[in-house]
Amino acid sequence: MQFHHHGYVSTDPRVQPAAGIGLDRPADLPDEVDVLIVGSGPAGMITAAQLAQFPDVNVRIIERRPGRLAIGQADGIQARSVETFQAFGFAERIIAEAYRITEMAFWGPDPEDPSRIIRTSSPEDDPTGISEFPHLIVNQARVLDYFAEAALNAPGRVTPDYGYELTGLTVTGEGEHPVEVTVAHTDGERTGERVIRAKYVVGADGARSGVRQAIGCTLAGQSANHAWGVMDVLANTDFPDIRTKCAIQSASGGNILLIPREGGYLFRMYVDLGEVAEDDDHKVRQTPMEEVIRKANEIIAPYTLDVKDIAWSSIYEVGHRITDRFDDVLPDERGTRTPRVFITGDACHTHSAKAGQGMNVSMQDGWNIGWKLGHVLDGRADEALLDTYSLERQVVAQNLIDFDKEWSTLMAKRPEELGDPQAVADFYTQTMEFPAGFMTEYAPSMIVADSAQQELATGFPIGKRFKSARATKVADTNDVQIGHFHTADGRWRIYAFADAAKPGEASALADWADWIADDPESPIAAHTPAGADTSALLDIRAIYQQVHDDIDLNDVPDAFKPVVGPFELVNLENVYAAIPGDDIFDVRGISRDGAVVVVRPDHYVAHVLPLSAKAELAAFFRGALRPAAR
Amino acid sequence: MQFHHHGYVSTDPRVQPAAGIGLDRPADLPDEVDVLIVGSGPAGMITAAQLAQFPDVNVRIIERRPGRLAIGQADGIQARSVETFQAFGFAERIIAEAYRITEMAFWGPDPEDPSRIIRTSSPEDDPTGISEFPHLIVNQARVLDYFAEAALNAPGRVTPDYGYELTGLTVTGEGEHPVEVTVAHTDGERTGERVIRAKYVVGADGARSGVRQAIGCTLAGQSANHAWGVMDVLANTDFPDIRTKCAIQSASGGNILLIPREGGYLFRMYVDLGEVAEDDDHKVRQTPMEEVIRKANEIIAPYTLDVKDIAWSSIYEVGHRITDRFDDVLPDERGTRTPRVFITGDACHTHSAKAGQGMNVSMQDGWNIGWKLGHVLDGRADEALLDTYSLERQVVAQNLIDFDKEWSTLMAKRPEELGDPQAVADFYTQTMEFPAGFMTEYAPSMIVADSAQQELATGFPIGKRFKSARATKVADTNDVQIGHFHTADGRWRIYAFADAAKPGEASALADWADWIADDPESPIAAHTPAGADTSALLDIRAIYQQVHDDIDLNDVPDAFKPVVGPFELVNLENVYAAIPGDDIFDVRGISRDGAVVVVRPDHYVAHVLPLSAKAELAAFFRGALRPAAR
Ligand SMILES: Cc1cc2nc3c(=O)[nH]c(=O)nc-3n(C[C@H](O)[C@H](O)[C@H](O)COP(=O)(O)OP(=O)(O)OC[C@H]3O[C@@H](n4cnc5c(N)ncnc54)[C@H](O)[C@@H]3O)c2cc1C
Ligand SMILES: Cc1cc2nc3c(=O)[nH]c(=O)nc-3n(C[C@H](O)[C@H](O)[C@H](O)COP(=O)(O)OP(=O)(O)OC[C@H]3O[C@@H](n4cnc5c(N)ncnc54)[C@H](O)[C@@H]3O)c2cc1C
Repeated sequence: MQFHHHGYVSTDPRVQPAAGIGLDRPADLPDEVDVLIVGSGPAGMITAAQLAQFPDVNVRIIERRPGRLAIGQADGIQARSVETFQAFGFAERIIAEAYRITEMAFWGPDPEDPSRIIRTSSPEDDPTGISEFPHLIVNQARVLDYFAEAALNAPGRVTPDYGYELTGLTVTGEGEHPVEVTVAHTDGERTGERVIRAKYVVGADGARSGVRQAIGCTLAGQSANHAWGVMDVLANTDFPDIRTKCAIQSASGGNILLIPREGGYLFRMYVDLGEVAEDDDHKVRQTPMEEVIRKANEIIAPYTLDVKDIAWSSIYEVGHRITDRFDDVLPDERGTRTPRVFITGDACHTHSAKAGQGMNVSMQDGWNIGWKLGHVLDGRADEALLDTYSLERQVVAQNLIDFDKEWSTLMAKRPEELGDPQAVADFYTQTMEFPAGFMTEYAPSMIVADSAQQELATGFPIGKRFKSARATKVADTNDVQIGHFHTADGRWRIYAFADAAKPGEASALADWADWIADDPESPIAAHTPAGADTSALLDIRAIYQQVHDDIDLNDVPDAFKPVVGPFELVNLENVYAAIPGDDIFDVRGISRDGAVVVVRPDHYVAHVLPLSAKAELAAFFRGALRPAAR
Repeated sequence: MQFHHHGYVSTDPRVQPAAGIGLDRPADLPDEVDVLIVGSGPAGMITAAQLAQFPDVNVRIIERRPGRLAIGQADGIQARSVETFQAFGFAERIIAEAYRITEMAFWGPDPEDPSRIIRTSSPEDDPTGISEFPHLIVNQARVLDYFAEAALNAPGRVTPDYGYELTGLTVTGEGEHPVEVTVAHTDGERTGERVIRAKYVVGADGARSGVRQAIGCTLAGQSANHAWGVMDVLANTDFPDIRTKCAIQSASGGNILLIPREGGYLFRMYVDLGEVAEDDDHKVRQTPMEEVIRKANEIIAPYTLDVKDIAWSSIYEVGHRITDRFDDVLPDERGTRTPRVFITGDACHTHSAKAGQGMNVSMQDGWNIGWKLGHVLDGRADEALLDTYSLERQVVAQNLIDFDKEWSTLMAKRPEELGDPQAVADFYTQTMEFPAGFMTEYAPSMIVADSAQQELATGFPIGKRFKSARATKVADTNDVQIGHFHTADGRWRIYAFADAAKPGEASALADWADWIADDPESPIAAHTPAGADTSALLDIRAIYQQVHDDIDLNDVPDAFKPVVGPFELVNLENVYAAIPGDDIFDVRGISRDGAVVVVRPDHYVAHVLPLSAKAELAAFFRGALRPAAR
């Protein structure tokens, strides 16, 4: 965490200095806004938190509820989401209060007495160390609270406007604020409708999205829903794995997904209620909780469950569905105009709760559109950037639906249909990277280069998220995860991995450093807004092959020691050294001739290229960003 | 973190349910209180935060300042303090914002050109892994903020009463509230004095303590002060170790202690201004900061320092001093009455800033008296317990003064006096355990047993702080630090290390478990207040020699699965297993026949004894605690 460089910070450094709109943000929803986000679920809140880092963008987030979410909905937090929380400044706090999954247990009928269940296997949850962050379970409300805090503590001081419901939306195409939205008050005191005009609208309004309907998207997928009885309960039981995540199948075909929850006592059970007939008309929702508990007891026999308190429960009905598009541009319009309305999260894709993906994928949708809108609205990038949202996220959603179909079909199979009793556990182990959130791989575009030079940094696959690795921060000799400095501040990172020479000696890195700092063609010169610090847009870091004792900061080129803030202080923290025995060059397969790795504001690797390819680097950024106004 | 067992917690689980006084705590300082703490520095705030865990105790903390401390004072946080922060629930947050010391660099005159300094060595800060927590540097104000939050979020909802100054104190010895304190308002609006009657007063009012004077303590020690120019600055420099903790000595005899600070830019310099003549009359305080900066530049030549902003500065004058007693009981009264007034922190002991101890030792003082007052006032222990405060902490203070004298004398020596240029670095490395806070070892008393059976658990020395170690939490298969569940909740911990048998088999542990749960002589039966959960006072945990896969929770005795809260839920989280390759029995030298380790509320090991020594365990607790009222 860096602070004090704008002057001494005595209180919580997580509260960043207000700027732009944040200096004087009106309490009431204004008539005109740059971005109107509809819905304060995970997708909407992360979009708001990201845009709050662009304080010149006037962003508002409306929510039909009168206040914060208190209880229920999703609870599975994949490691990719925890990485994301780290970028938004609250990973360590949410980890401290969440439940941490280390194993998943599979239970099935005892072949010797199928009326009893036995444990069939307990695979480790992340045997390969796919992330340095854990896999967590925590109430969705807490995730939203932390994002709300991040949005409020960011320079833009964004906070949800509760008690407003979107009732209509039209893209007029006219003027600077071409989207016209009608909103109604949902709290008793205020009545009537208002019209808000926005440059852009983000529909983060959940599975029954009104924004989706307004832009005429169609949902494809299963016609029928699947139903689960979901309960967050306080209970006593002799089921020995009650505090382990479990998939439990009984001989009768019943099945439970058991999720231990934060705090040591609470747990959630998804009791499968099967496919819902098309003419059911939500009758399944009348299933009494006593019936769900009775079913659960039946499934876990010979163990029993004594429920003391039902903290939350729901009959959760959902199908595998995906929209035909993620924005308001019709297929035959694509290329002729850029989108004005986007949909994110459950508004675009729904699927079973079995793989615990809903909240996680929704957050990545929201982050993706958030930084892009920030870039366009503060003049860093052309509107064309906004087409990449749909391009990137639609594929992810389709993969998710496909994965979830396979997984939930497998989990719903009766034991005799499965054949191999290990089939479910094996699938779980083999596909772990997907639900952990690390299979996303964006295709080449204006913000993702092709992988012609991937072999220079094999551990940082282009289009995938930058997987952090350890190095020594030279200035203070701390061994750190270099990825953890990549906070959600809207900046791009350029990691310059050095060739073999020491700082102070002639080298490809030294040449590159001179070029990036001084050449009029360099991306810093081309894209940094006039008057801003050189590191305001592109955060450039050097990683040397030497150990820290062999590096004198005085010999390191100025490109890696940017001057920041009103006191023109030198930032010494962007220079890293290899850790003996844990050398990042080996761990991530970096060429000993050096390499440049470009990472987008949302952690995805955008480019890998040699230190010598200066023109190519400049060209990449010319394609991604606008020339700075001077 | 455990929660939800008293009902669903939707918001921050760090906010514990209010209870007792906390349900309806008056905003204004009442006329009668159980405990009046004077001063909201580190010593006072930790006392308040600890007593806030005893919500039936009416505790108030007055502070002369109008509000929170904003800037300045100490910044060194030893690992023992970070352990303490963990117990109060904020270690992970303060670590995330603090500077972390991994090395300390020593600089001295270059023998070839003594006008220039060179680095003579850079020893690692904690080469032996003395704690799992780091050594930090952070503004004292942040430490106080976190304790303020902990006190406010605790059941007692304690918060400082700012703007009150103690002006007089008399121990009347009469009635239930035998200490009479006069306080004056320090804010302009309210004037006049008030009298507050207290059962006990804790003087945490700093080096010029009025409480100390009121109880007639005398200060012994150096007559003369030593002075430093202290500055928290934002500056640019070519001194290459500017972000490493450094001791810098120049040939001229000048010396600097350099402390990098949180946030990446700020650092502190202690520039030695030497002994202050007795007749100086604080003239040294008029030393202009320009003069201090000039001196600093002279010392670090050939490097230079370009100060851009002085965030805080002070001429810090202090001597090695210690009071003759830590409470109001005169030597010849000792044993005839128990103390009513205590002094803590700088009120008892002052010393140089060189070893960075002031804030740390003060916090341990405050924690020590805090839990003891809580025990006495809520009826858990006899008043005799209060005599142990002075007994325990006076020795620590004396050791601190002795250590600090040696250290600061060494650091102030001219290079030619030192002989060996490594002498300072060597002393630093050899004595590291002291400044890290782990040399405290309490002598036998009513709350510390003798070490007759120490060999059963050699890694948990009686009288020293319980050094955490790793084990698997069986219920959720998480590898954890068992010490991290020892929060500052005022409870004692009893760790029952098992003999070799598995749960379910006959064993010494199973016998012990039956006894502790069911025998009328057991400490649970003897001391747990009527109507409270069995784990309300003594938190009992089992550590098995097996790995977690070999333990079925259904076979574990009920003593280790206490029933808690209004729903009578079973707590499954007190059962641990050995981690293969990191076996706590080996790591901490535990007998394979098992052992019982008793740990006090403030983390100090109180007793080590065999599983068979039931009567001895009961007798120990009879000496420490009162029989519960029935
Ligand atoms: C009742 C419920 C139960 C769920 N249970 C589970 C579960 O058990 N397991 C699981 O994995 N997932 C569950 N989910 C799904 C999971 O919560 C979602 O995948 C996740 O929240 C998606 O995030 P989102 O931001 O896209 O949408 P949501 O979290 O649904 O957020 C949408 C927000 O928009 C608001 N909104 C909707 N329409 C309007 C409007 N017109 N104007 C203003 N505001 C509007 C809503 O009030 C809501 O706050 C559940 C969802 C719901 C709604
Ligand atoms: C100005 C100053 C600068 C310091 N600089 C350094 C440094 O550079 N390095 C270092 O290691 N240590 C420094 N210290 C010492 C370090 O801060 C202390 O060791 C540490 O704070 C001790 O904690 P404490 O709680 O015992 O006392 P303090 O932190 O001194 O707290 C005492 C509190 O009591 C209040 N108080 C005093 N009298 C009354 C009264 N009559 N009524 C009500 N309230 C009262 C004070 O306002 C203060 O808030 C400094 C201390 C001070 C006061």
